[in-house]
Amino acid sequence: MFDLIAFDADDTLWHSESHYADAQAKFKQLLTQYHSPEQIEQRLHQTEMRNLQLYGYGIKGFALSLIETAIELTEGRIRGDEIQHLIDLAKDMLTAEVQLLDHAADSVARLAASYPLMLITKGDLFDQETKIARSGLRPYFQYIEVVSDKTDDSYSALLAKYQLDPARFLMVGNSLRSDILPVVALGGQAVYIPYQITWAHETVVLSEQDRSRFFELEHIGLLPALVERLSPGSDTLGTTD
Amino acid sequence: MFDLIAFDADDTLWHSESHYADAQAKFKQLLTQYHSPEQIEQRLHQTEMRNLQLYGYGIKGFALSLIETAIELTEGRIRGDEIQHLIDLAKDMLTAEVQLLDHAADSVARLAASYPLMLITKGDLFDQETKIARSGLRPYFQYIEVVSDKTDDSYSALLAKYQLDPARFLMVGNSLRSDILPVVALGGQAVYIPYQITWAHETVVLSEQDRSRFFELEHIGLLPALVERLSPGSDTLGTTD
Repeated sequence: MFDLIAFDADDTLWHSESHYADAQAKFKQLLTQYHSPEQIEQRLHQTEMRNLQLYGYGIKGFALSLIETAIELTEGRIRGDEIQHLIDLAKDMLTAEVQLLDHAADSVARLAASYPLMLITKGDLFDQETKIARSGLRPYFQYIEVVSDKTDDSYSALLAKYQLDPARFLMVGNSLRSDILPVVALGGQAVYIPYQITWAHETVVLSEQDRSRFFELEHIGLLPALVERLSPGSDTLGTTD
Repeated sequence: MFDLIAFDADDTLWHSESHYADAQAKFKQLLTQYHSPEQIEQRLHQTEMRNLQLYGYGIKGFALSLIETAIELTEGRIRGDEIQHLIDLAKDMLTAEVQLLDHAADSVARLAASYPLMLITKGDLFDQETKIARSGLRPYFQYIEVVSDKTDDSYSALLAKYQLDPARFLMVGNSLRSDILPVVALGGQAVYIPYQITWAHETVVLSEQDRSRFFELEHIGLLPALVERLSPGSDTLGTTD
């Protein structure tokens, strides 16, 4: 039924948003004498959204937005060593161990035995490449695509590049906005696996109709069985049990 | 003679290093009360080299290195508004008009009439994509590749991906380290067109033997004639004169 299965990476195969959340918690702690946690969070989100068109996604842009927000919220009174602390937070994120989600390695290995797999991730090219290399999952993926954003247009360009029939293309990811809705809009199939935290920017409100157009799973360990159920002619996935 | 001609982008097709040099001049001005221009330049270079393995190439990493260097060189005494000034320098660089080098548009248009062209550039994916879009040169390039670094391995992977014979691949660029030497090492052909400024990181010392393995031109306007001279069977390039 599928010619290729594509996976998002951050928060689909490995933890990412939790690192951002940890950094934000430390950021709020740093500014606790100046503002309430809610005000700090709101202002940081505003700064990030304003800078997204300049920086794109990724940790380096996040770090620059942390610094800018800290300067704004302290009216310039933030100290040099505190700014350095923010830079160090970003460096910690960039060098953090890649922690795979439960079941991710097993599910990817099982599906790779029967399907060509593609990784489609957005963000800093350099950071994403090093994470893929460190994840240990690189050998399972035939194709890697790092894109600057995940929109109808970017998926459309990928489908054309690899000459893929949307109806036989399956995308797996944790973001309705970036992984699921653009793919179903193109006639593709999608499996939504929510992560424990969703970045405010990635949240969307779904209609009942939207909801009927993709599959939803509780965790990635359930993916091979779903794919098998959708591909009745293929029993290869069962052989590793 | 060539199946494909590939171009570097920054400082080969459009000005880039001059923007970094302008930002560095303003950075030295900002810290002038603390240190000599030479000391500032040396420390910034050290910080950039130390951070390269974390940040990769590009303006956002450069901005973070400017901030870190400023904190170090002022022993934390740099003020919030001065740090914001450094962030604004980076934002100016990210939104600066793309200024094509003299003859770049003409030469690319002429060569595109006879050869498939590829753009191979390193740095921030998002920044490079927006610059390509703003340059007006996008229609002439059949393929665009943004890579995290330009090494023997990355060129080797590109040649394999596009099934290109190195002997029939021509790379054009301003960096001996990134555009020329890795390509000739793989048996490819290369045209070196120096830019008015070379980033210290990109400088190399050439042997006499190295020097004999690539072509060197004064400016990109001379490229179509060189390609024509190297492809005696093809006279298509002359027809637009």
